[in-house]
Amino acid sequence: MAAKKATPRKSSSHRKPSRPSSRRVPGGPLPTIGEYLIRRLRDYGIEHVFGIPGDFVLSFYAMMERSPLHVIGATREDCAGFAADAYARVHGMGAVCVTYCVGGLSLCNSIAGAYAEKSPVIVISGAPGVDERRSDPLLHHRVRDFNTQRDVFEKITVASASLDDPLTAFREIDRCLAAAHRFKRPVYLELPRDRVHTRGVYPHQPGVESVVSDQAALREALAEAENLINSCQRPVIIAGVEMHRFGLGAEVVRLAEKNGIPMCATLLGKSVVGEKHPLYLGIYEGAMCRDHVRKFVEASDCMILLGTFLTDIDLGIYTANIDPGKCIYVTSETLQIRHHFFHDVLLSDFVAGLVRADLHPPRRPLPAHPATPPVHYEPHPKAKLTTARLFARINDLLDENMVVVTDVGDCLFAAADLAIYRDTEFLSPAYYTSMGFAVPASIGAQFGNHKLRPIVLVGDGAFQMTCLELSTALRHGFNPIVFVLNNKGYGTERFLCDGPFNDILNWNYHRLPELLGGGEGFEVHTEGELEAALAAATLNLNTPSLLNIHLDPHDISPTLMRLAKTLAKRI
Amino acid sequence: MAAKKATPRKSSSHRKPSRPSSRRVPGGPLPTIGEYLIRRLRDYGIEHVFGIPGDFVLSFYAMMERSPLHVIGATREDCAGFAADAYARVHGMGAVCVTYCVGGLSLCNSIAGAYAEKSPVIVISGAPGVDERRSDPLLHHRVRDFNTQRDVFEKITVASASLDDPLTAFREIDRCLAAAHRFKRPVYLELPRDRVHTRGVYPHQPGVESVVSDQAALREALAEAENLINSCQRPVIIAGVEMHRFGLGAEVVRLAEKNGIPMCATLLGKSVVGEKHPLYLGIYEGAMCRDHVRKFVEASDCMILLGTFLTDIDLGIYTANIDPGKCIYVTSETLQIRHHFFHDVLLSDFVAGLVRADLHPPRRPLPAHPATPPVHYEPHPKAKLTTARLFARINDLLDENMVVVTDVGDCLFAAADLAIYRDTEFLSPAYYTSMGFAVPASIGAQFGNHKLRPIVLVGDGAFQMTCLELSTALRHGFNPIVFVLNNKGYGTERFLCDGPFNDILNWNYHRLPELLGGGEGFEVHTEGELEAALAAATLNLNTPSLLNIHLDPHDISPTLMRLAKTLAKRI
Repeated sequence: MAAKKATPRKSSSHRKPSRPSSRRVPGGPLPTIGEYLIRRLRDYGIEHVFGIPGDFVLSFYAMMERSPLHVIGATREDCAGFAADAYARVHGMGAVCVTYCVGGLSLCNSIAGAYAEKSPVIVISGAPGVDERRSDPLLHHRVRDFNTQRDVFEKITVASASLDDPLTAFREIDRCLAAAHRFKRPVYLELPRDRVHTRGVYPHQPGVESVVSDQAALREALAEAENLINSCQRPVIIAGVEMHRFGLGAEVVRLAEKNGIPMCATLLGKSVVGEKHPLYLGIYEGAMCRDHVRKFVEASDCMILLGTFLTDIDLGIYTANIDPGKCIYVTSETLQIRHHFFHDVLLSDFVAGLVRADLHPPRRPLPAHPATPPVHYEPHPKAKLTTARLFARINDLLDENMVVVTDVGDCLFAAADLAIYRDTEFLSPAYYTSMGFAVPASIGAQFGNHKLRPIVLVGDGAFQMTCLELSTALRHGFNPIVFVLNNKGYGTERFLCDGPFNDILNWNYHRLPELLGGGEGFEVHTEGELEAALAAATLNLNTPSLLNIHLDPHDISPTLMRLAKTLAKRI
Repeated sequence: MAAKKATPRKSSSHRKPSRPSSRRVPGGPLPTIGEYLIRRLRDYGIEHVFGIPGDFVLSFYAMMERSPLHVIGATREDCAGFAADAYARVHGMGAVCVTYCVGGLSLCNSIAGAYAEKSPVIVISGAPGVDERRSDPLLHHRVRDFNTQRDVFEKITVASASLDDPLTAFREIDRCLAAAHRFKRPVYLELPRDRVHTRGVYPHQPGVESVVSDQAALREALAEAENLINSCQRPVIIAGVEMHRFGLGAEVVRLAEKNGIPMCATLLGKSVVGEKHPLYLGIYEGAMCRDHVRKFVEASDCMILLGTFLTDIDLGIYTANIDPGKCIYVTSETLQIRHHFFHDVLLSDFVAGLVRADLHPPRRPLPAHPATPPVHYEPHPKAKLTTARLFARINDLLDENMVVVTDVGDCLFAAADLAIYRDTEFLSPAYYTSMGFAVPASIGAQFGNHKLRPIVLVGDGAFQMTCLELSTALRHGFNPIVFVLNNKGYGTERFLCDGPFNDILNWNYHRLPELLGGGEGFEVHTEGELEAALAAATLNLNTPSLLNIHLDPHDISPTLMRLAKTLAKRI
């Protein structure tokens, strides 16, 4: 599945957006600020807006309710933020709408995560009316002054505006939405409640931003890359998350197939290319990845890193061994070949140029171990479940109609080894690593693409943070299968520095459906119980299924085990 | 109960703090930055620190675990923030300790609330080590750059520092803690993980800040106030929340008793004086308060407003009728008499001066309606429960060993009419009005004073946000009685602007104990069921009790009804 995109559907971020629907009928009245914002959100393909109403945003909520947008209520604002983030990852762009300060400031963490991991989320916040502010009154929800929330969001978004002036509001909306689209980062729009119904005062044509590559720099960079690839012996592609964000996943596959270059992905970029592809090696993440992938990648004399952010997690806590002198490294922000940099070259132009180039690198055999080992999972009904066995079973469960959404912790590390069928069917906060992402993100993902059934992997600590958002899944007839990896505490922290602060209360997670009034819960200790639960969950098509998977507090995944071994050698 | 205070226990914010315990033994080694921070927190009377560990703060967690501080794990960071806020309100100062960005940025809303409502909370956040940042790596949890979180907290705290330099760290700790103590606002301390065990490099004596009043201005202001009070006919005291924050509640009562001046409180300041006092009128909040209180207060020709913030909520959504020309208005920030201002006069000095002054205002009879109408609650077992009847019953339930903690919404408005026995036994976010405050705040309050049993009043919408924090109450053997006012949606918003976005899923709230593995739940539709539930809850001394109170979606409290009538007249 290719990510759905802003209008036009297949546009990459640097193509011209289609003629927007927001131009006024000649002679007709100009739209109101609220109406214009709604139209432009629709222009960018947004169909669902997540959030919670509050008095400073109620009139805009009422306006959205009457518009083609679907308003999706969450239980908490931060969950709405995670849902909008996941929606953006699957659908191309997302939006969240909340009230002033108590709503907006509750979004800081999820929007910071969207910033860090490049997910274009439009934050819309209500605010006190401009006319209410004259004598600087102590209106409820106010923190320091009326700009406090905007000041905060300036730090965690790529553009922000207060839509307080009808003369400039439409331009400001255009500017911020274009920035979200171009940079794949969140933006912030503050809408004073007395401006929702204020009409624009000046005829307005949405501006179309045009950004082009420096052609000479592009030519030189491509020539050098071509030369490097053609003179190397062991090329490899490392695909990162930007290939998905900029709609370039298919180009990566084309580049690999045309030239027989093996490819792998980073953890944050996992599923940017389908993991059943014959040229696909697996996830590369230093000491955390499978040994044969690590050896194959690190033996390369020409690494082609496409849209890859070299984060500490992606580098296996800096156990990776990547020599910049052997790299062609391109993202939307940087183009580096060996030790020098090219400026003003668009990611899409460079990747397209590479695909077109006349490359003829030597073909080399893939490692003996396939990326996706054939499944030989055979349940031992009485055996106590372990993380390794659980993930072997989940690997067996996955099909091409599922999206894996994983939270932070050992479930994320373990999930690296899962084989994902198509692109963009794996979502995780693998760089920002905020706990509590998975459950609300699964809801955003399912709104983003109703055909995908979420497989949610979450530790008990993270589940305690946002599990109640399953209420929203239940309300909308969604059917995620949620695996709670219950090791009675913050497992990966035990691995780093143990203490009683890593222990948490052991809830009856499988009984959450009784609180919510729907869904099915299962308690799982053994492999036999897992089979029974999965059989029932698979058939439960209209409500969430929840598996409380009891694990030994010190059981860890093979991935974490590999990391431990390498780190131990360093000491 | 007087709020417990920083060492010395009875110090007001402007007295000198006692000799701190943190001076080094002559000739002994200087403490580490982590050790010094812990000692100074103890100097200010902090015994419990709320939070959630994460890798950038793990070594400080381990250090706290070995110290006299008690580390209290929460389920989510924002809940830890609310708990620390309530702890500060009850105990004098609070602290919350979290990891970098994913932890800290999750605190923004609760810390903004503490800022708005003047609650001194020390925010301690771990951070990447200074030595790890050299080549500007993409360490997990990072948002824009390594200063992003600190930049955000500068907007919502009164002082902040990064403890990255052992030469200045101790002074920075002193400065920030003193600011929290003086201004009753949150402060932010960022502790890079490689500085926890770094020793100070320069002998350090904690500085003692000395702030004194401008004596001439103080004398002139007191003389004028004395003159106004002595020449008026109908004086009244309106006590606000700062009287509690600065430990001046007893002074207010002394001023009232000595001179026979009737007193009332604002909603945010509710319980700053015990509400059974014979001179106490009730809560004043414009059209939202009881009619006889409103008439009595607004007929005054000399209003003495002590530590009162005139927020829109406290002013009954600006239905209050207060003429500045008849006011003596003093807070920690402002001293205004009629239309002129005095600078550099300390709140405590002015209040103490008023108490000492030779006042002889005319005595006038209190209104016929007492502040606390005698309780005539008689259950009608088959009658469907209403908000009005529920609060009549709760008023009957309260005793002097309880603290009422209320969330935002109609439960807050309705609670205005409850009669609270002693001072500081009513906690609410009555200005910032963040939903989700009550449940986590009740835990902070009970840690702040183990003798108080929390009565928690919360709407279903707010309960969905933070109810899981009852896990922490359960874990520590706490016994809050939680009333969930279940009207199936955001009730006060229905009152303002209704739409489907105000409806939420109707959970089986009373079944939460089954998820958590402890506590008792009750479903209540009728007055008879309420009696049965309260009988059981009262006897349940070691776990939380939870009452799911079914209310009609359009049932509202008498308070909200009064407001509606006044607002209707304006149209």
